[in-house]
Amino acid sequence: MTLADLPDKDVETSARDTAATVIYVCTTCRRPEDPEDYPRPGAALAEATMRAAESTGVTVRPLRCLANCKRGCTAVLRSPDAWTYVFGHLDPTVDAQALVQGAELLSQSADGLMPWRGRPDALKRGLIARIPPLGFMESIE
Amino acid sequence: MTLADLPDKDVETSARDTAATVIYVCTTCRRPEDPEDYPRPGAALAEATMRAAESTGVTVRPLRCLANCKRGCTAVLRSPDAWTYVFGHLDPTVDAQALVQGAELLSQSADGLMPWRGRPDALKRGLIARIPPLGFMESIE
Repeated sequence: MTLADLPDKDVETSARDTAATVIYVCTTCRRPEDPEDYPRPGAALAEATMRAAESTGVTVRPLRCLANCKRGCTAVLRSPDAWTYVFGHLDPTVDAQALVQGAELLSQSADGLMPWRGRPDALKRGLIARIPPLGFMESIE
Repeated sequence: MTLADLPDKDVETSARDTAATVIYVCTTCRRPEDPEDYPRPGAALAEATMRAAESTGVTVRPLRCLANCKRGCTAVLRSPDAWTYVFGHLDPTVDAQALVQGAELLSQSADGLMPWRGRPDALKRGLIARIPPLGFMESIE
């Protein structure tokens, strides 16, 4: 047996299920300069993201309040066994596609991290926080 | 059979496992006014939180970078079937106990939300984001 016969971790884990990758979009979000009227810009972002995700397999779930209210619009990307990402400062008129691209990057990631290279700009400048996968233990060096 | 014979949802779900409630503390965090030297204030917060959690059953996991770097110090609270909470602007010299109290509140919560009433001030003013439990679906009214 050679090293080449060992299971390829990258190949195995790149089979993360796109359908199980979820984009949560806050429908009550607005940007600091937006009025307080309803419907809020977050609802527009949620609708645009659902349209952008059609036929990609990515699930979009609108919901009320991810508590990132000062830094809206807001979305969260989550995929099984991957890190969870919180994004803010999103523009409802242009950033839906970036969220779907980010979800696809995360669902294809071998190590559960969203790669910086190739990540849409809105998901670079809008990064608010990331949360490790369940059961994550950092190795102590 | 009367209503009193039905399973009490509050009682059932309040049995959330304290031991499965995790506080992730970012060890590379610093506040905006702190120098860039290591060890960082986040490491002090992690150590203080581990001490504060002794004999509570709450698990503390130090790790590097929750990507909330502009709003440090940072910690995340997660409990099974509950919402996940990201907190920033934490003071490593005084806020460890607040994190442990928050973890206990979350582990005792019947609806998976951390109650606002009784929540330590540091976890009110430092709230950065919250993320729904896996499988969460908001009901459409």
